[in-house]
Amino acid sequence: MKRGLSNSASDGVSFTPLVVLELVEDTKEEAVTWLLEKIRDKQENGGAELLVGRLRKDSWGDDGGNPNVFVVGASRDRLLSGAEDVGLVKESNDGSMRGFTFVNRNNFKDFKGDSDEFLSVAECQYIIKHELDTLRAKEENSVPGYAKVKLYPGKSILRRLLSKGILVQVFPLHDKEELKKLSHSWYGKLRLKYQPLDEIRRYFGESLALYFGFLEYFTFALVPMALIGVPYYLFAWEDYDKYVLLALFNLVWSTVVLEVWKRCCASLAYRWGTLCRKKAFEEPRPGFHGVLGYNPVTGRQEPTFSSLRRQLRVYLVSVPFVLLCLCGSLYVMMIYFSMEEWALRLHEEEQSVWSSAGLFVPSIIYAIVIEVLNRLYRYAAEFLTEWENHRLESSYQNHLILKVLVFNFLNCFASLFYIAFVLHDMKLLRQSLATLLITSQILNQMVEAFLPFWLQKRRNTKVQKQVRRAPVELPWTEQVKLEVDMSTYLGTFDDYLELFLQFGYVSLFSCVFPLAAVLAVLNNFTEMYSDALKMCQVFKRPFSEPAANMGVWQLAFETMSVIAVITNCALIGMSPQVKSCFPDSETQLILIVVAAEPHTGEVEEVQEDSSYPPSFEPARHFTHHRQRSSFLEHVLLAFKFILAFVIPDIPKEIQLKLARLEFESMEALKKKKMQDTKKLEKQDN
Amino acid sequence: MKRGLSNSASDGVSFTPLVVLELVEDTKEEAVTWLLEKIRDKQENGGAELLVGRLRKDSWGDDGGNPNVFVVGASRDRLLSGAEDVGLVKESNDGSMRGFTFVNRNNFKDFKGDSDEFLSVAECQYIIKHELDTLRAKEENSVPGYAKVKLYPGKSILRRLLSKGILVQVFPLHDKEELKKLSHSWYGKLRLKYQPLDEIRRYFGESLALYFGFLEYFTFALVPMALIGVPYYLFAWEDYDKYVLLALFNLVWSTVVLEVWKRCCASLAYRWGTLCRKKAFEEPRPGFHGVLGYNPVTGRQEPTFSSLRRQLRVYLVSVPFVLLCLCGSLYVMMIYFSMEEWALRLHEEEQSVWSSAGLFVPSIIYAIVIEVLNRLYRYAAEFLTEWENHRLESSYQNHLILKVLVFNFLNCFASLFYIAFVLHDMKLLRQSLATLLITSQILNQMVEAFLPFWLQKRRNTKVQKQVRRAPVELPWTEQVKLEVDMSTYLGTFDDYLELFLQFGYVSLFSCVFPLAAVLAVLNNFTEMYSDALKMCQVFKRPFSEPAANMGVWQLAFETMSVIAVITNCALIGMSPQVKSCFPDSETQLILIVVAAEPHTGEVEEVQEDSSYPPSFEPARHFTHHRQRSSFLEHVLLAFKFILAFVIPDIPKEIQLKLARLEFESMEALKKKKMQDTKKLEKQDN
Repeated sequence: MKRGLSNSASDGVSFTPLVVLELVEDTKEEAVTWLLEKIRDKQENGGAELLVGRLRKDSWGDDGGNPNVFVVGASRDRLLSGAEDVGLVKESNDGSMRGFTFVNRNNFKDFKGDSDEFLSVAECQYIIKHELDTLRAKEENSVPGYAKVKLYPGKSILRRLLSKGILVQVFPLHDKEELKKLSHSWYGKLRLKYQPLDEIRRYFGESLALYFGFLEYFTFALVPMALIGVPYYLFAWEDYDKYVLLALFNLVWSTVVLEVWKRCCASLAYRWGTLCRKKAFEEPRPGFHGVLGYNPVTGRQEPTFSSLRRQLRVYLVSVPFVLLCLCGSLYVMMIYFSMEEWALRLHEEEQSVWSSAGLFVPSIIYAIVIEVLNRLYRYAAEFLTEWENHRLESSYQNHLILKVLVFNFLNCFASLFYIAFVLHDMKLLRQSLATLLITSQILNQMVEAFLPFWLQKRRNTKVQKQVRRAPVELPWTEQVKLEVDMSTYLGTFDDYLELFLQFGYVSLFSCVFPLAAVLAVLNNFTEMYSDALKMCQVFKRPFSEPAANMGVWQLAFETMSVIAVITNCALIGMSPQVKSCFPDSETQLILIVVAAEPHTGEVEEVQEDSSYPPSFEPARHFTHHRQRSSFLEHVLLAFKFILAFVIPDIPKEIQLKLARLEFESMEALKKKKMQDTKKLEKQDN
Repeated sequence: MKRGLSNSASDGVSFTPLVVLELVEDTKEEAVTWLLEKIRDKQENGGAELLVGRLRKDSWGDDGGNPNVFVVGASRDRLLSGAEDVGLVKESNDGSMRGFTFVNRNNFKDFKGDSDEFLSVAECQYIIKHELDTLRAKEENSVPGYAKVKLYPGKSILRRLLSKGILVQVFPLHDKEELKKLSHSWYGKLRLKYQPLDEIRRYFGESLALYFGFLEYFTFALVPMALIGVPYYLFAWEDYDKYVLLALFNLVWSTVVLEVWKRCCASLAYRWGTLCRKKAFEEPRPGFHGVLGYNPVTGRQEPTFSSLRRQLRVYLVSVPFVLLCLCGSLYVMMIYFSMEEWALRLHEEEQSVWSSAGLFVPSIIYAIVIEVLNRLYRYAAEFLTEWENHRLESSYQNHLILKVLVFNFLNCFASLFYIAFVLHDMKLLRQSLATLLITSQILNQMVEAFLPFWLQKRRNTKVQKQVRRAPVELPWTEQVKLEVDMSTYLGTFDDYLELFLQFGYVSLFSCVFPLAAVLAVLNNFTEMYSDALKMCQVFKRPFSEPAANMGVWQLAFETMSVIAVITNCALIGMSPQVKSCFPDSETQLILIVVAAEPHTGEVEEVQEDSSYPPSFEPARHFTHHRQRSSFLEHVLLAFKFILAFVIPDIPKEIQLKLARLEFESMEALKKKKMQDTKKLEKQDN
């Protein structure tokens, strides 16, 4: 907008291009005309009232290229009225956040009538996307020129075109100038500072800004954990009390961190206007299919699919399939361990260079197999979730995330659980944990950022060469051509998954390998930079997605922290370093006071059986400890839940503001009612 | 309303009396006049626009009685406009539930213009109470005649009068005719049938109807539990597998029952219009005091109290006090057990009649002490919660319920826990459980229903004698006089508490005493009758309270069911009947397959230590079992949470209806916006 890139497209219309539409190369011209007509038509006639222009064919250079690339823009007033349609929430002049309305536009802060500062480019693009998505068929039965691509009244045209492969992609354009500013303040200077979350949000939208906010928050939250871990690692503190202290700290830490994040998140979401934003009615996702019927809520015509059938698919096919995959993954793990054992035996027998090299073979094979399985499973999960035929994009996402999460969790941590609770080999556990954590971190950074960056660089130079040969050099047409071929950012899923697994490495076995937090902190500092680089340089700009929280990931992290309490308590309970169990330290004293009953009971029970020789003593202690750690676990979990319950999810200040908004709307309603009644009375008289 | 009791009060006004206001006998006449003026004044002038009349003094008979008893009523239109103020939700002509508005009153089902069927008497009384409560001071600084009873603009007059003791009570009148019908269909015929929940709701309001709904639901839900418990009791099945099966059943049962109740509750609340009812802004409770300031939400003048100070009071005084009380209760329990032991020893030494009678002394003393402690604690809890100075009635209630709940839980179950996990005496546990359950049930029924019933009967005859001597016999003035002296129903707290403790008896140690469910079922059938009797005959009619669910009690029951899983698993784990631990049955086989890892680990760990003689075997089994039961616990708890997560809280059908309502209001908003924009465009042209 501000960059003043207003430029004439091939058909002479002059506007700022915001969003790119790419149709397949051989799209029939009548369909193109029809679509453009629809996009340009007035809203009263069911159009989107947007501006659209075709990219000039000659600007592609000699080798042609797709002639069906269009850029879409909109007039300022259209964008403002669209802002009301999508339910944008903006700061009003009295400092509170209110749903934007075109009528009251002058009551909003930063609205100066003629300036474009009010709506960010990302918001404009989001509005255009929303308007394009809600472009609905009226009386057409099919797309002109494509008799097979059926339409019915109310069907979203773009979604149908997309699902039928006529529309290749819709994406927003980067804003070179703003991007430059953003990347400068984001990762331009290599020094420690907070991320410019508000600017990220302005450019990429709330969902991504929240991810970066969480990444930063989580990294800082790991610092105390890392600091506490260092002495444990350096001095190899391995006695019971110190373990319990560490577990206790870990528990309080993870609970408080997740609760405080909720509050931070609410503050951010309030500032960004997504917290009190009313959710619009969710349309069926593009891939949803079924018999044409009437939606019971809207009364509109749309595909219907019995929810019983979906549930049958979920519980009778998907759940068993996932369980089978989990068992398969466990089986592979068992094979790995027996291969490991076999390699070790071979090495012990032969003691040759070959056999010692062979020691690494099982690990390498296992790592490759895991990677392959993860990918195969991901495809299977996507296929299955697609087949489950969810009506809403959100429930599709939730089902997919859950499937992938469970499998990834098992793949990453099953071997660690096996080593910890079956092999009881703490040394091996520590070693495996370190290896897994470090390799996964390095691999991730490579695959995620540097590889695509390098690929993109190569592609860019290729396209630039092409463009240079073109006769007319329009800066934004060049930009469109560059961006059409950039890879698409698939959402925050993989980024969150990575953090989730890292959280697992840090918290699940924190007693055994307290150094994990240090590694995680180091990794996250570079991760912030590489993720920023990736977003700014490698991918197409993603559409801004309004989000008020992490959604299902909050639940995932909280579940992980519960599992962490259980595993840590189990580790403490079976720790072989536990030598004495009578109150010889303060921590234990406290614990035994609390846990007096089961402790006494245990002693009595054992002592009743007088046939045990004195050598039984150690086992008795062992039993004590197990029982105490089980009791400890219950106390810790109860404490955790109480803590989570006591910390309010939304900061007081914001609660007040929200309550104030609600109160005002109630008062307004009351006033209106009074007026209505008066009017009625007048009519009666 | 329908009973046509319209009658002229002393000052000649003719209307149906609905609510009674009782001021203290020596209220200054100027205050009375002022109050009546306020109640009668038009709404525009800040009045309540209600009808009010004083009870004639001569109707009290010779011995006088309070001259300051007033009855309040309202015109039909005033009630309808009040129904909108309180946000009543009614079924509209198209079958959906909508917030009632006076303007659209003809769109509602059952609204026939001239009939009173539309609003139930309970609703009318609720509306009048709401209008009285929101009667606010304007420019008065104090109540006329009482310079010390300060007022400020916006202060609720009735609340101030109540908190200063000038207003004795406000209560709704019974409706003899409807009550007769209700009691006939409720408990008139002694045969098994569903309770008339809709009629109860119509007469007593949603909160009470939900309690009776839950009581009935819970009783029926206990039946399968009771049926399964009988063979366990009869055949004394005490082996591991059957215990596990029972525990598993118990777990699934309690989870499903509580989840399904949520759904039933939602259905009922939808039908009664409380599910989609918008909560009005909550006013500060009468007892709330503080420096006069401005409410940050409403901007109105009201007392303010720093939430930090309140939290300090809660965490630094209340929480330690409650913990101290809990410890005190535990200490009393320990004294009881040592007295018990001492009495037993004495009896063994002396073997006299006196000593055998002395065996009962500790139990009797303990029971009395517990009862006294419970009462003392209740007062202390009320005092403390009052002192914490909560702004809202709801948060006051929650804090009070939590305090009382924790203490009652410990008092009731601590001795059972002690017997189970310290004394390991399953026989004693069963015996104590049975004794406690039966005595508490009998005592409750006595204290709760029959005693007040008898007292009320005595009082009634006394008043009737008085009335008969009166010169003029007005049926409803007589009724008012009868009801002024009836005891006040203090809400569903004690009733829910009783059910909660019963749920504890049934589920916590269900493995040990499966017969508890049978006793509970038998008790609840009589409980339904006695509670109904109590509500209809003993107490003043309570104001109807809108409620969409059980509130904090749902959480309490769910917490109890989690604790039940833990205790049952612990009981199984330490059960001395567990003799074999290798896979000799199908249940175990499954469990061991699941629990393979820790099981194997345990064996290895023990076997590594080769110094143990063979006699160690039993202890090893014992350890196995403990560990397996701990693993079982985790699996069961995980299963429980997944189950609770998978069952949707609101039935699909109602979800759809709610979504439809929301969608419609969104569409209406959109339409309004379009109109506004068009208007604006016209103005611009």
